[in-house]
Amino acid sequence: MEKKSTENYIYGKNPIYECLLKNPKRINKIFIQNGVFFDNRLKKIYNLACENKINIQKTSFKKFDDIFEHDLNLQGVVASVSPVEYTNIEDFLKTEKDGYKKIVILDGISDPHNFGAIIRTAAAAGFDAVMISNHRSVSVTPLVEKISSGAVNHIPIIKTSSLSASIDLLKKNDFWVIATQMEAKQNYYEIDYTDMNFAVVMGSEGSGISKTILNKADFTIKLESNFESLNVSAAAAVILYEALRQIRIKSPL
Amino acid sequence: MEKKSTENYIYGKNPIYECLLKNPKRINKIFIQNGVFFDNRLKKIYNLACENKINIQKTSFKKFDDIFEHDLNLQGVVASVSPVEYTNIEDFLKTEKDGYKKIVILDGISDPHNFGAIIRTAAAAGFDAVMISNHRSVSVTPLVEKISSGAVNHIPIIKTSSLSASIDLLKKNDFWVIATQMEAKQNYYEIDYTDMNFAVVMGSEGSGISKTILNKADFTIKLESNFESLNVSAAAAVILYEALRQIRIKSPL
Repeated sequence: MEKKSTENYIYGKNPIYECLLKNPKRINKIFIQNGVFFDNRLKKIYNLACENKINIQKTSFKKFDDIFEHDLNLQGVVASVSPVEYTNIEDFLKTEKDGYKKIVILDGISDPHNFGAIIRTAAAAGFDAVMISNHRSVSVTPLVEKISSGAVNHIPIIKTSSLSASIDLLKKNDFWVIATQMEAKQNYYEIDYTDMNFAVVMGSEGSGISKTILNKADFTIKLESNFESLNVSAAAAVILYEALRQIRIKSPL
Repeated sequence: MEKKSTENYIYGKNPIYECLLKNPKRINKIFIQNGVFFDNRLKKIYNLACENKINIQKTSFKKFDDIFEHDLNLQGVVASVSPVEYTNIEDFLKTEKDGYKKIVILDGISDPHNFGAIIRTAAAAGFDAVMISNHRSVSVTPLVEKISSGAVNHIPIIKTSSLSASIDLLKKNDFWVIATQMEAKQNYYEIDYTDMNFAVVMGSEGSGISKTILNKADFTIKLESNFESLNVSAAAAVILYEALRQIRIKSPL
């Protein structure tokens, strides 16, 4: 029960600010801790909430002790929200875009820190979506929203019951699939990312990308590492920004 | 008192394995949780400990409840260790190396997750050291060791009482200083990293790099971001791997 109820709260200044900016309809009510210092970020939250006619309640945060773990830094602000709305693959493919689309697919990544970090990086690098599977991955929990710094409101999260079927659909729709794999022959920077719709697939650090999905890949790429493998969110940052670098060199901002 | 005592323990399979491999003398004793499953990693730890004549004790992990927070995942193995030995800048400059040296300098980064992640990425990208300041940054705590996945045993951590003075010393020793700054004109990929000793300076997400240090920089570089700024450890991964990419294109492995 306890776990379920946390699904309806987000916390921290950035996640709530970004949600107010991009997705105010998700927010039912905002709780501000008694006596908290109103810095610029909190003032902006307050004003945006007023503009959107969202109820603000000043309160002792003791009520949240049972819901959140004590050591979480709530930063004096909590919002009661409806969950992030996931996109489905068919709707994503229908959205129009000038130029090529690029997405990230997460296969079996269960750590909320990595998931949140990759969402934030994908939004920063201008990617069009992050795709996860229904059963092998995590959902967008409050911790994921916090780690993503609210980026979950900026970039669509595609949830699918079958990564494999969705990848087939992407391929039918002119997407190229790029899988990261330690044993790959090509380096991640030896691919031309500028001339295609593409999906970069990242696997979990423990078990990598599943075989079924690897078999569907048009390219496999690797990253050099002098010490174990890179952390998966660091690897994602390197690859996504290499794609963006190539795109910018071809067509500067 | 409680906090001090945790400084002498590290936990988790990777940090302990890497410490045994590279720095076994740091380890006084290894504690293995009663009834824990001996997977390959734990077997390797056991064997390496025996080879190095390190005392292993099977025990209930209740004794660690007061030392570690309950929600930490100790993975069934804890080691009592002497702290990581920091390097000083003079000794680092004396070490000989074929080719150019490259280091990362952290100015005011206090989050242990970011610090640990950057150490891991720097080791993976083949950097020669990570430099931190005595007073504005974090130390290598057990959490940092865990997040770094044990990379603290692979790459020297230079600790200095004055980042500013140490940067002067680096410059006198033929290092070029590259500072990351949102307002910079050059993109991070527009610099040639292949032809010099260099230090990449990363600032905290809140306040960036201090002015004194910015004034000493030979280059300032930026990263494009479509959503706020990148997380600092993601930004570090992008820059460090761009340097490595350029180096590999010039001299492949």
